[in-house]
Amino acid sequence: MTHFVSHLEGAIDGTRLEFGRIYNLHAGKPIVVRYDLAAVRKVVTPTDIATRPPTLWRYRELLPLPLDVEPVTLGEGMTPLLKCDRLGGELGLPNLFVKDESQLPTGSFKSRGMTAAVSMAKWLGVKRVALPTAGNAGGGAAAYAARAGLECFVFMPQDTPVVSHFEPHLYGAKAFRVNGLINDCGKIVKDGTEPMGWFDLSTLKEPYRLEGKKTMGLELAEQFGWKLPDVILYPTGGGTGLIGMWKAFQELRELGWLKSDKMPRLISCQAEGCAPIVTAFDKGERFAELFPNAATAASGLRVPVAVADFLILDAIRASGGTAVAGAETAIAPWMKRASSREGISICPETAVCFDVLEKLIVNGDVKPSETVVVFNTGAATKYLEALPAELPLLEKERIDWDKIGA
Amino acid sequence: MTHFVSHLEGAIDGTRLEFGRIYNLHAGKPIVVRYDLAAVRKVVTPTDIATRPPTLWRYRELLPLPLDVEPVTLGEGMTPLLKCDRLGGELGLPNLFVKDESQLPTGSFKSRGMTAAVSMAKWLGVKRVALPTAGNAGGGAAAYAARAGLECFVFMPQDTPVVSHFEPHLYGAKAFRVNGLINDCGKIVKDGTEPMGWFDLSTLKEPYRLEGKKTMGLELAEQFGWKLPDVILYPTGGGTGLIGMWKAFQELRELGWLKSDKMPRLISCQAEGCAPIVTAFDKGERFAELFPNAATAASGLRVPVAVADFLILDAIRASGGTAVAGAETAIAPWMKRASSREGISICPETAVCFDVLEKLIVNGDVKPSETVVVFNTGAATKYLEALPAELPLLEKERIDWDKIGA
Repeated sequence: MTHFVSHLEGAIDGTRLEFGRIYNLHAGKPIVVRYDLAAVRKVVTPTDIATRPPTLWRYRELLPLPLDVEPVTLGEGMTPLLKCDRLGGELGLPNLFVKDESQLPTGSFKSRGMTAAVSMAKWLGVKRVALPTAGNAGGGAAAYAARAGLECFVFMPQDTPVVSHFEPHLYGAKAFRVNGLINDCGKIVKDGTEPMGWFDLSTLKEPYRLEGKKTMGLELAEQFGWKLPDVILYPTGGGTGLIGMWKAFQELRELGWLKSDKMPRLISCQAEGCAPIVTAFDKGERFAELFPNAATAASGLRVPVAVADFLILDAIRASGGTAVAGAETAIAPWMKRASSREGISICPETAVCFDVLEKLIVNGDVKPSETVVVFNTGAATKYLEALPAELPLLEKERIDWDKIGA
Repeated sequence: MTHFVSHLEGAIDGTRLEFGRIYNLHAGKPIVVRYDLAAVRKVVTPTDIATRPPTLWRYRELLPLPLDVEPVTLGEGMTPLLKCDRLGGELGLPNLFVKDESQLPTGSFKSRGMTAAVSMAKWLGVKRVALPTAGNAGGGAAAYAARAGLECFVFMPQDTPVVSHFEPHLYGAKAFRVNGLINDCGKIVKDGTEPMGWFDLSTLKEPYRLEGKKTMGLELAEQFGWKLPDVILYPTGGGTGLIGMWKAFQELRELGWLKSDKMPRLISCQAEGCAPIVTAFDKGERFAELFPNAATAASGLRVPVAVADFLILDAIRASGGTAVAGAETAIAPWMKRASSREGISICPETAVCFDVLEKLIVNGDVKPSETVVVFNTGAATKYLEALPAELPLLEKERIDWDKIGA
């Protein structure tokens, strides 16, 4: 056996689908990968994994690419789990951690999904991929497509941060701005499938980006010594990471690799200006409605409708967690505050998480004794627009030390 | 014993200096760290190191910070060594590798020096640091100073890329632009030592950034199975990385950890617009003159005078290597070519290395059978100005597939 996938499964109705073919959605909803975990348990242990190179491919048996196929990789994964004592001290949380995804290739968590999805697409014979992006996914896809030698088309809202324009261009993708939001871009990609002959790489519209994102949960478990934290705050746009982590935790539990079966509470964080999941959570709904007039400086959260809404909401509820919106006005201040306390390049989406965390501490929903992990999903430097920097100009002939020290 | 440092040494005259005090230069030249390698050999082996977490602090016994002191760390190090088959195929080099430093905190190799220097500064009681920067060092220093809770002052040429303005601001440093070059900024830092009471963190004007940079060489050795490649191309501004790697190789040789004592040829790559080391190398000099009217899009190479010029030139010559200038006009094309072939975020300084590599292959100075490593010292996204991206704007109501496919 060169892989441990048992089958694919339609997430909405449990329909079994055969592995090894090209799929997008089933019944208009996501497809997920299922493994023969009993077989995995027989061939690999956490001790084996500890000896492997520090990339997400160390969890090879829990990923869909056959073992004898070379992945399309840029060395991604095993991002640092950083204890934050200075910020934790201010917030009254002695066990606050940031999982820093800004250190991945292309500076964001999108690399995890892309290494898996592009590896699978290449293996399955795809030559051309396309996707919509709210910002970071475009750069990630373009980089991995370049590494694989695939053609790549990227569509983004016209006012996406400038670094998101730069990256696909750098990697030789064909990138376009669109007078609309990510769902409008998604429609172009869908409509182009036939005339352009590309594979739709949209998140959760193919089964494998989710598997790559799942490794955030696997790494967290390994880095905490195969225990899980009490609380995870995760910024939620398309929600793949949140769904992926929850899937990872269930697989680890079934494998028997966890020292305790206590699951973390998942806190889905959105911005006030685009909070469809928060709205649905509050109403007790399983499906979210399109969020009208979506607008936020946290561009990655500007996803007014998510194809996997029910999977996000199921995971939050199953974990005993919640969905909370952070204030738009808190974004720039929290980017600066968190970054300047800990030296971590905190992106706007994660700034939203810190605003939510502060609310939950005040509410008593997060206790000082709890171990809390906040995901930093990308580098702040990818969002220059969110925190304008205008540095004073000095004349070298006339240096005034008082002014410099002021 | 809590550390393995035997003493510090004035690089120009071998003067022994006591470890554990605050130093900048000795006789106007750099100070280097010497270790009791016989003692290191007794307590640690490459096999031990293989079991440690994937950060540069795995080489703890070869770093100056006492073992019982917590480093100021963001999880930096063990950057991927990526085989480049597509680009290697085009260049006729089947064994071409890129060591990708863009995946470090703050997106550049500067983090290596800063984790070491800021850890040491904090341990030695420093409260306030200052430095000049050509771009990336400022962000790196600001991040580690933030993590350590130190005050940080950054001075940069006024036309430094915008991301270099953003980063120190994000991390709460006091950052200034200056109407001059990095040596003018360096003078401000030097002059301010007295009135401002800060510690001068300029590269090679304190002993420890070099030790952090040295880990590029240690990682390379470990990742190649304790052998070294035939050729290393390294973009040279201040030259700390090149000197550091050469120091690392000598230490490893003395430790007996290398399977072969054959040393790589070091190729120092500079840009035509600022090539003081190349000029001195060609003239057979040990010291370099100030390069007049320095100007290049590879902003990290805009260092017209390097305090450690003689250490750079000594290392190049001892290795049997050379110093070569790349063409200014090759920078943008090579950024795009290398990035789009391999999905690696290639910075302008590394683009210069690829231009040099191509020349050396044509010359016959680099042979197809050789194992060649090119260092990618930072993320391309930190140099938006170097490769302008103007993406076409589509109207979602009027999609023309022919135009998209063109």
